[in-house]
Amino acid sequence: MTRLQALFEDFAEAEAVERIDADWPPTLAKATRHTLFGGGKRVRPMLAMLAAESVGGTAEAALPWALAVEMIHTYSLVHDDLPAMDDDDERRGRPTVHVAFDEGTAILVGDALLTEAFAGVAEHPRLVALLARAAGGHGMVGGQVLDIEGVSDQAALEIMQGKKTGALIRAALVGGAISAGATDSMVDALGTYGDALGLLFQMTDDLIDEEQDANADGRSFLHHMSKADLYARIKTTTAQAQAALQGLPAKDGLHAFADLIAQRSV
Amino acid sequence: MTRLQALFEDFAEAEAVERIDADWPPTLAKATRHTLFGGGKRVRPMLAMLAAESVGGTAEAALPWALAVEMIHTYSLVHDDLPAMDDDDERRGRPTVHVAFDEGTAILVGDALLTEAFAGVAEHPRLVALLARAAGGHGMVGGQVLDIEGVSDQAALEIMQGKKTGALIRAALVGGAISAGATDSMVDALGTYGDALGLLFQMTDDLIDEEQDANADGRSFLHHMSKADLYARIKTTTAQAQAALQGLPAKDGLHAFADLIAQRSV
Repeated sequence: MTRLQALFEDFAEAEAVERIDADWPPTLAKATRHTLFGGGKRVRPMLAMLAAESVGGTAEAALPWALAVEMIHTYSLVHDDLPAMDDDDERRGRPTVHVAFDEGTAILVGDALLTEAFAGVAEHPRLVALLARAAGGHGMVGGQVLDIEGVSDQAALEIMQGKKTGALIRAALVGGAISAGATDSMVDALGTYGDALGLLFQMTDDLIDEEQDANADGRSFLHHMSKADLYARIKTTTAQAQAALQGLPAKDGLHAFADLIAQRSV
Repeated sequence: MTRLQALFEDFAEAEAVERIDADWPPTLAKATRHTLFGGGKRVRPMLAMLAAESVGGTAEAALPWALAVEMIHTYSLVHDDLPAMDDDDERRGRPTVHVAFDEGTAILVGDALLTEAFAGVAEHPRLVALLARAAGGHGMVGGQVLDIEGVSDQAALEIMQGKKTGALIRAALVGGAISAGATDSMVDALGTYGDALGLLFQMTDDLIDEEQDANADGRSFLHHMSKADLYARIKTTTAQAQAALQGLPAKDGLHAFADLIAQRSV
């Protein structure tokens, strides 16, 4: 586990003891822990903390925001896994919430995590607004609706993925910077980086799925361009992401992170 | 329609045009409107506006809060109606969201409304915290979990109902008062009134259900006390609610509202 991951896990555990275990019905707390501490890679919290460091702040300053974003990410997985949605029985090698408990509990665990995300950042109006916009009908939920409806071309695919996946990745970075007291121009830089990084995530995901023989339909970049073209786009997008970091006080962490994502599948 | 209901409907419609129609995928906006403008009585918004007036403010001051609370109430109905929960096909004489659209859309409409509720009050830290606490694992969602698990005695019933129904009614009043700039002692008075009013709602609901031959199990007050005892408790609870209003600048609206609820079924 990296330094930042360990920092996040300690914080999340302490917050869960105080805000979940001590305060929610035991069944709900148990089912929520099953997923919130279910082996997630904590990518979004790490981005929030790296963003805080990139603008000259501490990773610690971004912890409440990092947990809020991870709660939103986790709720979205619990609801996406439901039988009426993707109907997945396993996640990260463990039974999904509706399998380990039941469907009603899974709906409620998602609702509780979504609500609790806002509780943790209530005192920061900019963060509340940022979280609601990234997570709601304009962002993730809207992207999920577009995903269900299907996409006809690459432009529609990018819009859908930008909402479904990109919005929260971008917000994780922007909110991390805000948490660390970034200037407006630094926040803008993180937003530009976040847009590119979200796209990188999606493009490399499609390559991984392709290599795993996963079903590739109109929702995959590989249905709209050749693999060679996709590799080229990954390269230019990585460069765009890293260029956005110029001028930040401490850009090395996020610069390396973009390389890490770009190289997931090449 | 009363003056306050008309005020709320105009506000909600204008906000929906700006925040939902203009900003969400059309399918999501349409399905959300189906339920948000689906004939709800707007009890919680009216309580928020009456609370604002009771502390000497205007009903208008409470409108953003009133809409946030109604969005939370509406999302909870959409999710409660799902097949995995209460499996209701109709609400207010119209098909529920999962019947009119589909189950996945209903889950997402609930998620979007829950998220959007926070967007509307983001700039008010006290309101964000109040909403999260009333709606989340400590409040409504926790109450729903306790409801599914079942209650063994009257004390457990009151705790369950206090979370499932009472928490948002209380919050509607407290947040309405805060929106209007109430003093701490006024806010406390509204909280006391809200606790009693939430109990009144539940007790009179049980009487209405009983008269409608609805299934009465351990979740009904009538399983734990005689009808005569329940009428007596309604009377004392009404008096408690109204007593809490002493000292407020303009208590008539909420005083009359308690009578209205108490007399729903007697």
